Amino acid sequence: MEDRILLAHGSGGKLSHSLIEEVFVKSFDDALLARMDDQAVFLSPGAMLAFTTDSYVISPIFFPGGDIGKLAVCGTVNDLAVGGALPVYMSASFIIEEGAPLDDIRRIAGSMAKTARECGVRIVTGDTKVVERGKGDTVFINTSGIGVVRDGVELSPSFIRPGDAIIISGTVGDHGMAILTKRGGLEIPVESDCAPLHILAADILSTGAGVKAMRDPTRGGLATVLNEFADTADCSMHIVETLIPVRDEVRGACEILGFDPLYLANEGKLVLVAERQGTDEILAAMRKNPLGRNAAIIGYAAEGPKKKVILTTAMGNRRIVEKLSGEQLPRIC
Amino acid sequence: MEDRILLAHGSGGKLSHSLIEEVFVKSFDDALLARMDDQAVFLSPGAMLAFTTDSYVISPIFFPGGDIGKLAVCGTVNDLAVGGALPVYMSASFIIEEGAPLDDIRRIAGSMAKTARECGVRIVTGDTKVVERGKGDTVFINTSGIGVVRDGVELSPSFIRPGDAIIISGTVGDHGMAILTKRGGLEIPVESDCAPLHILAADILSTGAGVKAMRDPTRGGLATVLNEFADTADCSMHIVETLIPVRDEVRGACEILGFDPLYLANEGKLVLVAERQGTDEILAAMRKNPLGRNAAIIGYAAEGPKKKVILTTAMGNRRIVEKLSGEQLPRIC
Repeated sequence: MEDRILLAHGSGGKLSHSLIEEVFVKSFDDALLARMDDQAVFLSPGAMLAFTTDSYVISPIFFPGGDIGKLAVCGTVNDLAVGGALPVYMSASFIIEEGAPLDDIRRIAGSMAKTARECGVRIVTGDTKVVERGKGDTVFINTSGIGVVRDGVELSPSFIRPGDAIIISGTVGDHGMAILTKRGGLEIPVESDCAPLHILAADILSTGAGVKAMRDPTRGGLATVLNEFADTADCSMHIVETLIPVRDEVRGACEILGFDPLYLANEGKLVLVAERQGTDEILAAMRKNPLGRNAAIIGYAAEGPKKKVILTTAMGNRRIVEKLSGEQLPRIC
Repeated sequence: MEDRILLAHGSGGKLSHSLIEEVFVKSFDDALLARMDDQAVFLSPGAMLAFTTDSYVISPIFFPGGDIGKLAVCGTVNDLAVGGALPVYMSASFIIEEGAPLDDIRRIAGSMAKTARECGVRIVTGDTKVVERGKGDTVFINTSGIGVVRDGVELSPSFIRPGDAIIISGTVGDHGMAILTKRGGLEIPVESDCAPLHILAADILSTGAGVKAMRDPTRGGLATVLNEFADTADCSMHIVETLIPVRDEVRGACEILGFDPLYLANEGKLVLVAERQGTDEILAAMRKNPLGRNAAIIGYAAEGPKKKVILTTAMGNRRIVEKLSGEQLPRIC
């Protein structure tokens, strides 16, 4: 096989087949995928299903703590997890730029396969397209996923009521800062937190405590998720700066570079809102899981000001955490 | 709202929200999508499910007979249909190039919505990413779909046996030639056949005749599907040139431009292999559907030569229809 992707790898002909068979089918190693049909057919895995999709255009495709392949699998697993679902089946679709090194594609497929295996999710259907040089950027990946929603679980920010607690599973901003420093060639030792959160989410829901809503604060960060919660719940979200876990390196780099960790993307964190009385059980369950070791209550929902996120700063002032305007960090995921 | 896509439309912030709400949520008009959760949750629509994904990178995005949006919905509907499934839920994920005209995106979303509505499929979850100018090409779309497999239907090219008939639902090469002439600025009146085939597929399966395998011969055309059938079935596929419906304009243009209609993409055709004794019922059912008006038996499966596709030409010669090598028409779907 060639060592770079050619347009002919996207033709549907011989080279397409060798790419799909020798790289994707081999890496993902799944009986349904290996049938090479236009669709995967399976018995419905449960009564209530969750269905999600995301395209990944992150640049660079390899970064400290992960790569676009690991990110794509974790991202879809996490979008199912925050809906209270365990991931079962996934699709993988690639848009590859002509000239992309085949070794990069192989490495990314290997990383997807490893992450999917660790999550117990099967990659059962896929697609490969190739675009001309300069019409893409090495590789974009779409993953869509199907998960089984845990019995009796229904989550929605519309369930949030004043007095509910806001919990974060760990430090914020790691993914965003890892990409930022990698792009800038900076020597700041920050790794992306890219990780699958389905077990942590299940641990939380297993407590039976009153969880109202969960999200993974990716693009736009914690500030964006809390603004979405406030909008949908028609109440306010109050958070306290000193309660929000941020790594020293991330805080320091944010100060130097002029970023706010509240807006930086995370790829391995959960933010949830739950009834006050169940939070001890939730925090205890989260802290037993390495991905929730630094879980903390960071604030609470309140009556007003409606649809606003309010931060009490380390200095003791209060300010509104606005929705992101402008682009901040393009292609962060 | 701006009249062109900005990087900030992909930030997850204010502009992302306005793009998603004012264009996608408004066009697709679905209660599950409008919740703007990271996943859609629904009761499993059936016992046996089909799951498929495809990314669309076609150039140009608007072409005679359709656009990338209609193509994306039909493509996913058809990949479910050829698995014997009725489409129920679909995702829509967009990778948009900075500077893309917002009107184009709006028009494409409208086209997707219209096609999905006609097919009775709901677009319930989605994603939007923006890449810098020169790192994409106006818009790429991924659609993934979930369908319900008809009771008792199991299709696979591995079921094909010598003596089975090969049927095509109509003229071949229309989509490929429409794109080719549009790109070349040629004045040949050929429209893409882009159409949803789930009803036609259901009509065929309703006959109860022994259908072994179905495919929609898209990228790589009829020749590629038949080669895949021959490979999997471990037999040979014999076709007769004079039996294969080709529009005069397409045949003429192929002769001038040096293309073979057998390799040109179709986006609204079915090829199927079925037991000989049921073909009258199948053809009668197909011809009642406008999309199957020109349905015809074009050949049969035989013992040998194993894994080969053999064409009896109009001149009476026989030749092997090889797998496509090289790229033929990049970005045809």
